[in-house]
Amino acid sequence: MKSAFILAALSCGLCWGQTTGSCKPSALNIPEAKYPCVYQDHRVLFRVLAPDAQKVSVRIGGQGFDMTKGPDNVWTATSTPLVVGFHYYTLHIDGAVVADPSTMTFFGSGWHNSGIEIPEPEADAAYYQVKDVPHGRVSQQRYYSKVTAEWRRCFVYTPPDYDTHANARYPVLYLLHGWGEDETGWYRQGHVDAIMDNLIAAGKAKPMIIVMDNLNAAKPGESATIFAARGMVPEPAPAPVPVPDPAAQPGRGALPPGGLARPTFTEMMFTDLIPMVERTYRVLPGRESRAMAGLSMGGAQTFTTALGNLDKFAYLGGFSGSCGGRGGGAFDPKTACGGAFADPAAFNKKVKVMFLGIGSVEGPGTKNFSDTLTKAGIHNVYFESPGTAHEWLTWRRCLNDFAPRLFR
Amino acid sequence: MKSAFILAALSCGLCWGQTTGSCKPSALNIPEAKYPCVYQDHRVLFRVLAPDAQKVSVRIGGQGFDMTKGPDNVWTATSTPLVVGFHYYTLHIDGAVVADPSTMTFFGSGWHNSGIEIPEPEADAAYYQVKDVPHGRVSQQRYYSKVTAEWRRCFVYTPPDYDTHANARYPVLYLLHGWGEDETGWYRQGHVDAIMDNLIAAGKAKPMIIVMDNLNAAKPGESATIFAARGMVPEPAPAPVPVPDPAAQPGRGALPPGGLARPTFTEMMFTDLIPMVERTYRVLPGRESRAMAGLSMGGAQTFTTALGNLDKFAYLGGFSGSCGGRGGGAFDPKTACGGAFADPAAFNKKVKVMFLGIGSVEGPGTKNFSDTLTKAGIHNVYFESPGTAHEWLTWRRCLNDFAPRLFR
Repeated sequence: MKSAFILAALSCGLCWGQTTGSCKPSALNIPEAKYPCVYQDHRVLFRVLAPDAQKVSVRIGGQGFDMTKGPDNVWTATSTPLVVGFHYYTLHIDGAVVADPSTMTFFGSGWHNSGIEIPEPEADAAYYQVKDVPHGRVSQQRYYSKVTAEWRRCFVYTPPDYDTHANARYPVLYLLHGWGEDETGWYRQGHVDAIMDNLIAAGKAKPMIIVMDNLNAAKPGESATIFAARGMVPEPAPAPVPVPDPAAQPGRGALPPGGLARPTFTEMMFTDLIPMVERTYRVLPGRESRAMAGLSMGGAQTFTTALGNLDKFAYLGGFSGSCGGRGGGAFDPKTACGGAFADPAAFNKKVKVMFLGIGSVEGPGTKNFSDTLTKAGIHNVYFESPGTAHEWLTWRRCLNDFAPRLFR
Repeated sequence: MKSAFILAALSCGLCWGQTTGSCKPSALNIPEAKYPCVYQDHRVLFRVLAPDAQKVSVRIGGQGFDMTKGPDNVWTATSTPLVVGFHYYTLHIDGAVVADPSTMTFFGSGWHNSGIEIPEPEADAAYYQVKDVPHGRVSQQRYYSKVTAEWRRCFVYTPPDYDTHANARYPVLYLLHGWGEDETGWYRQGHVDAIMDNLIAAGKAKPMIIVMDNLNAAKPGESATIFAARGMVPEPAPAPVPVPDPAAQPGRGALPPGGLARPTFTEMMFTDLIPMVERTYRVLPGRESRAMAGLSMGGAQTFTTALGNLDKFAYLGGFSGSCGGRGGGAFDPKTACGGAFADPAAFNKKVKVMFLGIGSVEGPGTKNFSDTLTKAGIHNVYFESPGTAHEWLTWRRCLNDFAPRLFR
């Protein structure tokens, strides 16, 4: 952390004169905002108006960059080159942790914080761009949950031909966000509709319905979230209450220490969500037309829910998260994950695809998990996204690789 | 402004001890955040963690309230009683204008800022609550605009029976947001789906499709927005660049001085949007099945677009905005609004409903406008929302009164 600060301070004087004007505004800035501005080498120029502040810094990707104040009261910092993809980030203004007002905000880490996109080369990013192909729709769907005793909402992707093929029925993928995120993640950060529209137009994926819900389901009296949201302010108290440093958090969308799947979500899904979907949309019935996947904590939720209910799901995907977590280390496939893999032949017969995706920057844990399962005779697909972190670009790529494997 | 500051400072010491614990978290807070917290008399307790700040204030509804720092590094202020309804608001932390990290954010004034809901009595608010009635859907619809040469999106409300009545066709209301807002306004701040679901379930409004687009349409080379967004940071410059004080702005969603409708939006609407809607959704054709309405700047846009094209629209609504603006004063109905009212009999025959809505706190301008038109023999509906300002509660009520009048 400290070295990043020093590097930023040293490099800023050099880089400013060389590169101003050659950067491009992040695609996630508010309309017409020029900053944050991304250089070709993935350094980012941040600018924040804070006339009377004493200390301003930007925290992104686990790094901090001190900003310096100019004569126009604008604080400036240029980061070191950042990992490609979508990053949440925060400003620290005299100790207050806030979103950068120059960007659209995205629900992550339990609050609406700033987002920036470090773009891939255009050709690589094509799969999640909105193109001249038939477009499906993402719809907000209200429904009442008896389990949580509340009106909930999910978002539902219907494929381009859903309205025009009035008698067609479709398979369904239940797709979950990660820690601190919500039902908006996949259609805002994840570009689920563009990815699916492009895959379907190219004939690479079967037309399907995708249901995106909020995994933080809670019964009355339960906590609705398992995270202390960044924006939460401690209750009045005589002594200072420490607030976790977001840079020290286990990663945006990451599994919190000890955090696992929510049994209430599984119960809600079977009692309320799936019946509502099958009553409301033209879906194909049965386990071979039903898939579940999720990222990070949503991957853990997926494996808990689906491995325990293989009569209901034939496909499952863990994007940077599964019952194996992201950790490496030895484990016994016979007893791991509640014994789901104890009988490889039976498992392979039931599960048509078990997908394990990860970003290469995240480390070898998922590869080890996959390899051990493979050696034990458990069929699985290992997918590694080159050069990406525990962030949304990894998960967009995971979906782009996973969806074509479904419902074959 | 100054008196509000002093009042806040004086009242805070008194109110704190009396009322802590009797407030309710705003419905727009992030999950489980207890602040901002609204008292029964509509004062609000704000709390912000800012350990090293020198000066923190909250700006809401044109007022500012200085915050005071406690031993826990949390800054606190209790406002005076606020007008009922939805308010955007900002924090000023040592001169930086940012959103409160404790709330969901909403696109207004050109950026994602904080929002708070000062609740109405439960019975009054029932019309925009999600209830146990059949629910329509709000869908994100992509389309390509030849006029603006870009992929755009709008949101489309389809009524509860749209999917099950596969041969039914529906009239369409085109519904616009205000200054500094976007296509998300009506379904997030406006609760358009709950209002329509409740009206339709009660048999008060005809089932209809509602199309919500972004009026900041721009051709290549045009400015995409007519506002300087709050979050925008000035370009590097040797001298300080003044940034407008949001409290001095003409109101959230208000008409900027000299700001009027955008001709590009009208062109885009006729060339791209309406054809896409009529190609994609099962709509009833013709002017008597087409309505247009908008709030504030969206009302001005509506009157410019629709009054100039009465062959295409039989219904129009201005919610706190029309060709009469919000100003009072004398005008000649014969020549006002491009001469649209020059022939009252012809106008009344063509326009089935012209609706002029306003919040009572906004002043008598719209009432004067309506009265003058009425005296000149121009049929119009005047609707006044009691006790509300130039804000979303006024506009929810306008929609609730306007929609039942459509397509009769």
